[in-house]
Amino acid sequence: MSDRRTEILRAATRVIARRGVRGLRVEELAAEAAVSTSLIYYHFGDRAGILRRTLEFINDRADRYTAERIPGNDPSGPRNDLEQALLLELQDIPEVRENSTAWGELRASTVFDPDLRKELARATHTWVHEIAELLGRANPAGTAPAHAAAAERLTALLEGLSVRWLSGSLPLQHARRLLREAIEVELAHGRARTTN
Amino acid sequence: MSDRRTEILRAATRVIARRGVRGLRVEELAAEAAVSTSLIYYHFGDRAGILRRTLEFINDRADRYTAERIPGNDPSGPRNDLEQALLLELQDIPEVRENSTAWGELRASTVFDPDLRKELARATHTWVHEIAELLGRANPAGTAPAHAAAAERLTALLEGLSVRWLSGSLPLQHARRLLREAIEVELAHGRARTTN
Repeated sequence: MSDRRTEILRAATRVIARRGVRGLRVEELAAEAAVSTSLIYYHFGDRAGILRRTLEFINDRADRYTAERIPGNDPSGPRNDLEQALLLELQDIPEVRENSTAWGELRASTVFDPDLRKELARATHTWVHEIAELLGRANPAGTAPAHAAAAERLTALLEGLSVRWLSGSLPLQHARRLLREAIEVELAHGRARTTN
Repeated sequence: MSDRRTEILRAATRVIARRGVRGLRVEELAAEAAVSTSLIYYHFGDRAGILRRTLEFINDRADRYTAERIPGNDPSGPRNDLEQALLLELQDIPEVRENSTAWGELRASTVFDPDLRKELARATHTWVHEIAELLGRANPAGTAPAHAAAAERLTALLEGLSVRWLSGSLPLQHARRLLREAIEVELAHGRARTTN
């Protein structure tokens, strides 16, 4: 992807995280990215095209920062990989807060505007699949459908906790503790199902 | 509460569920409720006042429809009370869809606009407390902190599942199944903790 194109998507994420999707105007995005509106239309076609590519950009960025190591965590092991893939979405650092805000806002706006519906469902499906794989490695005796259902619950819970955090109803550290316990609860349940 | 006041709040919920909080203009609300804008200002003071009272209205309405009986469910028992308090938030009937859409939208808009932050945190707290009580009755041997944490997870999961449903990423019946399983997983975990 060209640097200019990436810079526009980074600017779109910033604008959405600052003022919401409904506040996103191509003129404002052009100003934020310091490019012309015609360059934006050249790269993305229309506003819906910008939003689709911004959703991809957000997902790629989340893939990257959730693949980093939690400091002090045992660097190996499927349980740790699972924990960090989920917990690293709850960090009070600008990139993660911006990404989480923009993701939540794209999710919320899709309730009213069906433009992104297909792309959002696909991105959700991909995310659930990745977490289900990590659950499978953490509990190899479990079944694929059980891992898939647990992955849907853990990712939906994470979305719910994230918007509570960002809307001021839940302190971040408490959200992290609840998510960590949810992983424990799901894994314990998965083990109980396979040993009983 | 006067009938006219209730009618304005019902109209505000409809407008928010149709076009979002950010689409809510007092003039449009007046037209929807078939009253004058001055009557709205008389009752609610300003736009923030309208939103605060609409949040209360939505919560009161949810309290009412989640206290109804699920057809075919055993009418008694704490486990059933817990299931229906959560599952009745996931129903494809106009009142519930409208309520869930408006709640999710008030939640999402509070990420950007701090006006409702305090009221939303309080409403979330009340809801968590109600579900924690039901968990306590379903598993009397568990501790209050464990019930509170499970209630926070179940209600945050419900918010996450609800917005996935409303944004077209998750069929309703599947969302209900995931939530029902989450209740089972939490209760089983609670029992395991108290018997081990």
